[in-house]
Amino acid sequence: MQCSNTEVGAGTMNPLTFLRVLGPEPWNVAYVEPSIRPDDSRYGDNPNRLQRHTQFQVILKPDPGNSQDLFLHSLSAIGINIREHDIRFVEDNWESPVLGAWGLGWEVWMDGMEITQFTYFQQSGSLPLQPVSVEITYGLERILMSLQGVDHFKNILYTEGITYGELFLENEKEMSAYYLEHADVSHIRKHFDNFEEEARSLLSLGLPIPAYDQVLKASHAFNILDSRGFVGVTERARYFGRMRSLARQCAQLWVETRENLGHPLGAYEEDNLIYPHVSEKPRREEVPVQPRAFVLEIGTEELPPRDVVEAIEQLEKSLVNTLEKRRLTHGKVHTYGTPRRLAIVVENLSMKQTEVEVELRGPPVAKAFDEEGNPTKAAEGFCRKNNVSVDHLYRRIGGKTEYIYARVRVSARFADEALAEDIPTIVSGISFPKSMRWNSNIVFSRPIRWILALHGDFVVPFYFAGISSGNQSCGLRNSSLANFKVETAESYLRSVEKAGILINMQERKEKVLHASTVLAEGVGGDFVAPDSLLQEVVNLVEAPVPILGRYDDSFLELPKDVLITVMQKHQKYFAVISKSTGDLLPYFIAVANGAISEEVVRKGNEAVLRARYEDAKFFYKMDTQKKFSEFQGQLSGILFHEKLGTMLDKMTRVENTVAELALILGINERMIPIIKDAAALAMSDLATSIVTEFTSLAGIMARHYALRDGIPEEIAEALFEITLPRSSGDVFPRTDAGIVLAVADRLDSLVGLFGAGCQPSSTNDPFGLRRVSYGLVQILVENKKSFDLRRALTLLAGVQPIEIETNVIDEAVQFVTRRLEQLLVDEGINCEIVRSVLMERANCPYLAAQTATEMEAFSRTDTFPKVVEVYSRPTRIIRGKEIESVLEVDPSVFEKDEEKVLWSAYLEVADKIHPGVDIKTFADASLLLIQPLEDFFNSVFVMAEDERVRNNRLALLRKIESLPKGIADLSVLPGF
Amino acid sequence: MQCSNTEVGAGTMNPLTFLRVLGPEPWNVAYVEPSIRPDDSRYGDNPNRLQRHTQFQVILKPDPGNSQDLFLHSLSAIGINIREHDIRFVEDNWESPVLGAWGLGWEVWMDGMEITQFTYFQQSGSLPLQPVSVEITYGLERILMSLQGVDHFKNILYTEGITYGELFLENEKEMSAYYLEHADVSHIRKHFDNFEEEARSLLSLGLPIPAYDQVLKASHAFNILDSRGFVGVTERARYFGRMRSLARQCAQLWVETRENLGHPLGAYEEDNLIYPHVSEKPRREEVPVQPRAFVLEIGTEELPPRDVVEAIEQLEKSLVNTLEKRRLTHGKVHTYGTPRRLAIVVENLSMKQTEVEVELRGPPVAKAFDEEGNPTKAAEGFCRKNNVSVDHLYRRIGGKTEYIYARVRVSARFADEALAEDIPTIVSGISFPKSMRWNSNIVFSRPIRWILALHGDFVVPFYFAGISSGNQSCGLRNSSLANFKVETAESYLRSVEKAGILINMQERKEKVLHASTVLAEGVGGDFVAPDSLLQEVVNLVEAPVPILGRYDDSFLELPKDVLITVMQKHQKYFAVISKSTGDLLPYFIAVANGAISEEVVRKGNEAVLRARYEDAKFFYKMDTQKKFSEFQGQLSGILFHEKLGTMLDKMTRVENTVAELALILGINERMIPIIKDAAALAMSDLATSIVTEFTSLAGIMARHYALRDGIPEEIAEALFEITLPRSSGDVFPRTDAGIVLAVADRLDSLVGLFGAGCQPSSTNDPFGLRRVSYGLVQILVENKKSFDLRRALTLLAGVQPIEIETNVIDEAVQFVTRRLEQLLVDEGINCEIVRSVLMERANCPYLAAQTATEMEAFSRTDTFPKVVEVYSRPTRIIRGKEIESVLEVDPSVFEKDEEKVLWSAYLEVADKIHPGVDIKTFADASLLLIQPLEDFFNSVFVMAEDERVRNNRLALLRKIESLPKGIADLSVLPGF
Repeated sequence: MQCSNTEVGAGTMNPLTFLRVLGPEPWNVAYVEPSIRPDDSRYGDNPNRLQRHTQFQVILKPDPGNSQDLFLHSLSAIGINIREHDIRFVEDNWESPVLGAWGLGWEVWMDGMEITQFTYFQQSGSLPLQPVSVEITYGLERILMSLQGVDHFKNILYTEGITYGELFLENEKEMSAYYLEHADVSHIRKHFDNFEEEARSLLSLGLPIPAYDQVLKASHAFNILDSRGFVGVTERARYFGRMRSLARQCAQLWVETRENLGHPLGAYEEDNLIYPHVSEKPRREEVPVQPRAFVLEIGTEELPPRDVVEAIEQLEKSLVNTLEKRRLTHGKVHTYGTPRRLAIVVENLSMKQTEVEVELRGPPVAKAFDEEGNPTKAAEGFCRKNNVSVDHLYRRIGGKTEYIYARVRVSARFADEALAEDIPTIVSGISFPKSMRWNSNIVFSRPIRWILALHGDFVVPFYFAGISSGNQSCGLRNSSLANFKVETAESYLRSVEKAGILINMQERKEKVLHASTVLAEGVGGDFVAPDSLLQEVVNLVEAPVPILGRYDDSFLELPKDVLITVMQKHQKYFAVISKSTGDLLPYFIAVANGAISEEVVRKGNEAVLRARYEDAKFFYKMDTQKKFSEFQGQLSGILFHEKLGTMLDKMTRVENTVAELALILGINERMIPIIKDAAALAMSDLATSIVTEFTSLAGIMARHYALRDGIPEEIAEALFEITLPRSSGDVFPRTDAGIVLAVADRLDSLVGLFGAGCQPSSTNDPFGLRRVSYGLVQILVENKKSFDLRRALTLLAGVQPIEIETNVIDEAVQFVTRRLEQLLVDEGINCEIVRSVLMERANCPYLAAQTATEMEAFSRTDTFPKVVEVYSRPTRIIRGKEIESVLEVDPSVFEKDEEKVLWSAYLEVADKIHPGVDIKTFADASLLLIQPLEDFFNSVFVMAEDERVRNNRLALLRKIESLPKGIADLSVLPGF
Repeated sequence: MQCSNTEVGAGTMNPLTFLRVLGPEPWNVAYVEPSIRPDDSRYGDNPNRLQRHTQFQVILKPDPGNSQDLFLHSLSAIGINIREHDIRFVEDNWESPVLGAWGLGWEVWMDGMEITQFTYFQQSGSLPLQPVSVEITYGLERILMSLQGVDHFKNILYTEGITYGELFLENEKEMSAYYLEHADVSHIRKHFDNFEEEARSLLSLGLPIPAYDQVLKASHAFNILDSRGFVGVTERARYFGRMRSLARQCAQLWVETRENLGHPLGAYEEDNLIYPHVSEKPRREEVPVQPRAFVLEIGTEELPPRDVVEAIEQLEKSLVNTLEKRRLTHGKVHTYGTPRRLAIVVENLSMKQTEVEVELRGPPVAKAFDEEGNPTKAAEGFCRKNNVSVDHLYRRIGGKTEYIYARVRVSARFADEALAEDIPTIVSGISFPKSMRWNSNIVFSRPIRWILALHGDFVVPFYFAGISSGNQSCGLRNSSLANFKVETAESYLRSVEKAGILINMQERKEKVLHASTVLAEGVGGDFVAPDSLLQEVVNLVEAPVPILGRYDDSFLELPKDVLITVMQKHQKYFAVISKSTGDLLPYFIAVANGAISEEVVRKGNEAVLRARYEDAKFFYKMDTQKKFSEFQGQLSGILFHEKLGTMLDKMTRVENTVAELALILGINERMIPIIKDAAALAMSDLATSIVTEFTSLAGIMARHYALRDGIPEEIAEALFEITLPRSSGDVFPRTDAGIVLAVADRLDSLVGLFGAGCQPSSTNDPFGLRRVSYGLVQILVENKKSFDLRRALTLLAGVQPIEIETNVIDEAVQFVTRRLEQLLVDEGINCEIVRSVLMERANCPYLAAQTATEMEAFSRTDTFPKVVEVYSRPTRIIRGKEIESVLEVDPSVFEKDEEKVLWSAYLEVADKIHPGVDIKTFADASLLLIQPLEDFFNSVFVMAEDERVRNNRLALLRKIESLPKGIADLSVLPGF
């Protein structure tokens, strides 16, 4: 088919994909799509990033089952030697917030370069897809560059005598200038609104096709606004929401239209698939008696690294469990995992189950025998079913009833029979953070393509997810052992090893470590790999081949953080530092997979990294043409929220409140000038090019650029710290300035967005306010900062451009309290204790956290119930009584000594308890009340006839009941 | 390459064509272009018209010289049997007012269906193209329909199991609804403005590529406005102008950019072409003495029909002239012409020139001989050059000088030598209304591809427009004699006949007439072919084959005018009417070319006509769903001019002024109610669908729809007549109502557009005001309507929405006067007489015309100079004298009788001359002054000493001089 006739960012947006993957109609399509991505504008400078790049888009619906192989064949067909190149399927959880679409799959890397996106579509237009479509999106320029061995797109030979550069370079230059510098933002904003309005009106007329056309135009308009740097973080979410809503309605309407047309292209039904036959049952007469090894290998398309680890743990646990339940004795159990296989080997698994006698409970005696003591039909049925005679029944009391029982010998089945029943359940029971469907309704991390299950020589026969178990396995795709047969379970590991696969995760890790060390030492360095990266790399390959590559020294001018971020995050490379100085060396280590041409793969990876660094350099150069302080002004171009103004407005609010906020946080006044200076620069790096491109460098680049401009270190550090914590497990701000900024920024977001009506719902938190609030309480707790939350929120409420009602502040306090609750529960504190403390001390998160921790410890002591008892008895008495709130204790009205003693004990205790008191003090003081209370209740009748006396006694009890106020609400604890 | 990523109406708009055809760089490209034409929206109902149709666009730059053949081969390659089908190249002068582009070429018709556009680009972006590009635009759906033998696009098989309808029908339905009904006009108007502004700003930044992208978006926006029916006639011109201006600037900037880049794709130079060798000179010794026939055949790509006729006339005249000048005796001369050849045959052309003796003039005698009478070097040189001896010189006076002369015998050259020199000049001297360049700088109606030039057995050898003359000719392209050799000039006609070509125009005509008559009679009818159509058809083919086709009876429900317009204008078919009733019969006659399969061609043509009629039916049905009177309101959606309002505003102005205008035109008051009723409906058909599609039916449809709704005939007729005259040679309104409406509409346009600053310039008349004014004076003159032009213009000026200054009315009067002058001069009246009359009577065009005609006749009489003399003498006397304007004649101051006689003669004459007087009366009266004037001048001295006497005499002469006032300004005549 032909490409879209309005700009699309990707072939996926073309209605030939977006609409056609919906519904049950089969659809196989291929087309070239020139994809327009204003954000990728580089004036033609970057070797392989273009604002107009060319995709070859393929949709296979339903999944044909061998799409990875088809894909690899297609690469061969266009001349790529897949035996030389390192072709890898790297996890990519694709999502389009605009289209309401997502899928799981991979970036396909060739020598480190992403040449294709490969996705199993799960949802589109916010509708689940049935059947699933396979989307293969080839990046033609990148493939051509590799095929022709050129290092810049402009050198691709397009046709005889004409290079790609001659055809497209000028286009890249001029369109980049348009998208990055000149596009008229006010027009395009207006166009976006118009397109949306038009789409809505067309939807209401029942016209999904033109409506979707308007969505595409809106999306391109958005992309231009984005490339011009005029979309703020929160605004972005809103834009996405608007487009997604339209896309969803288009999809729904389209589905209806196709239904009304009666699905002219037919309707896919899974039953139409022709499944391979389940292999024949093993011949029972030949089953040997000796226990044999058992192996189960689940062959998949490339699993995400973390899924490999988690899946084999689950698999082991579940299988061992099953073996026990099934009474199958066995020896050691070993697990293995690579991106393409989860394997478990059980030594010496018995061929048959252990025979056992079990006790079975039948009907109650009352129902099993009639009045004459003869067995009823119920008893006879029970006997018949379990093949025992009535004589063998016996009776026993179970709970309050007497039942009949029988002892039954359970027959021993063959191990493979039992396992054949259980393995499907075991496999389908493995859970993943993200699962997908492919051609059946079974979900898994990635499609399962083969299952090897051998018990000794026998295939354990079952059928799962459209596949029959067998004795076939797969080796490296580009090797001669791409498929091989395993003769016996015992020979499995040897066979796999022979196919060149290091199935043992630890061995792979050691190989990577060793080889990388050798390579790094060869250039006088050490390699740097955070453990998480190492673990990831190990599970990205089946046969690791570390390769040393080099990049141009000139890139070392770039900030180290940038260089390492690109290497680790984008390329999964290890950096290399000098053994002597610790400085970064211009080398990297890439870990390739299997038997490839090292020279080809090295060159490929070097070219990719060069392109990445060119990109970073391009941005860095753009940024450093100005002073860092000049970027603040540009924040006015980034909308924070339409009601709350731009990022500049936001940071101005922060700047105007940090002084008072510092006081609330109890920070030394001397620090205020520094904090204010930092506030004036904070977040300005959001306007820099490098942060626009590598968002994970926000804060880091602010610090870098600030230091580069000679700004004092403590200010620069605060610029970094305002972003902390960036994710769970991250570090926290530690400097006073950093704390104040981080708190101010979060409070502003909270109170402003709540005021603007952007409270998170149970399913939707577009502005990430949960994360914001969680971070806020973490900062306060970690830094032990006392803090009046309500006062601080009120302070920020006062500077918002919209009116913030008191109830909004209440709501925000509540919301933060819920996060604090979560934090404390996450830390292992009993949730009732947490709730009890938060009822009173939520407004000061650090104090609350401290109190909860103390109370948690205290709750494990014997004293704890006594203290609770001190307050629960008075509470029970006065609960439900109407006591005037002004009621005060009048010692002259006391009639009994016990009253007087209790009153003086109260006065003593009350003197020790103050609003910020710690739990030990509170508990110790409370204990002083135990005896006086005991005596009081033993001898004083509270509800006396005389109203004055009665009320005075009630008032006394209420005074005691109120003592924990401001510390904890003990009444929510169990046993109160 | 890939298609455009923004909507384009045609592949031509894609920058791969628009920009790349500019400049000297060679460029050969092919791409598929889904072309979006909102105007062609038909909800998928029409068999071959779609709002999204698919072009295959090919650009060949420079022209390879055989592009027509390449094209035909390409048709064969995709499976079209070009021997069965009637494939024709039908003149199409392509022009894009948006792109400032034009070219000459053809629609390629296959069995009456346009399947391809074939154009030699001459200009793009308002820049001349050097080299010329060949553009071939295939209409893929139409070709596929024909290849697959299906009669509706939805039945095309796109791929196994999937029809085109399944893929695109829903798209057609929904997008049609969007473009015709729902697109938000106010948004899109605004977008157009924004795109224009953006383009302008990008141009000022030197960025032609993104600027051009904006032009494309503007163009699509315009197309939507147009399909929604929101673009008025004058507004359309303005929109085009705005886009063209941008396109021109884009083109200029692009050309500069390519220059600055140093033309990376190289620069085409004509010299690089390899020309065939000029054939060898004939061997002189063999030249026979007997005169032989001479034939010249200029083989071309298909010429427009009218060009064939005009070119052979010029060719004959020019050749005969040359033969005479060259002293080549000959017999009869015959000319022939077909679309592909211009041929001339000269009988018995002598082989050599006639020998003659000529007299040559040398230097003046004074310089030819020295003082001694000896010849100087000058004389010797003259003798040497002309090969005469000094003795043979003789002398003669030429003018005032005496020269030397000699008689010289001019040698007789061979005819072919002489002709070889002359023919290139003869051929390049042929002029056409529109000419084009192809691969050389020679211009012709269409490219010349071969030249046959034979004198007897000999090729007359020359080289012209990149071609060597020879003895090869071409037959019908799809025949086995596509190329053939002609042995002798005498056998030329036989050879051509043998190739199946009817080279004689008259014979072709007779064949068409005869065969068509027979075909029509076969179904009991006569065929209807206006002479212009017949003449056109005859020159569209080389071997006419009339074919009778039929269409469905149901189409006869459509108005006859519509049916015939479609047949004649769009398809060049003859209609067939019943011999008995004169009613239209459901048949047509198409004239095919050459040896084709009649069955295949008939079926093809029938399918095409059916599609055309479906189209018309679609529109007619849409229109007749409403009463005709309801369309007036829709005129508010058609902008006339932004300052002058919509067409509804315009027609309201007309309605409000017709009553008074009728009085100015001297029409009976009784007619006014009818005129006002007609005005209320006039032009409403511009809002009907059928007129939107077939603009030539404006007026005709108004009459039709009015009659259909039972509106009285005289009103209906006026609705038609308001459009008259539509072109030169058209009829004029004849009814009072029609005249008033036609005049009112034109006056409104004139005064309004002049007031809005849209006066035509010498090169530009976007609103066609010349035609409007010419029509206006024609109507008045033809209907002999007296009329006060200024008063009428003032009347219309009063109802304009903008202030009309008096000088604007002056300007308008002047402008109309110039058209009247042109009309009268066109009618053969001496232009000085016309000017003389218009100086006085322009304000009443009919009177002026009548006066000019009379004066023209009178000017040929002997009396005429006498009358002129009557006024010229008094004028000469008073000219330059300061005469007080109040000066009156006082009879008491007369001193001489001659004064008194002249005075009384004056009084008598003045009595006979009034403002509207005819020329005869004026002349007769004027003659009475001859004698008195003669006497007066003989005896009276005007410039007497006595001032009173002198002034009185001057006053008398001025009275006489002023007599022609209001009739004619005689002073502009020669001899005055």
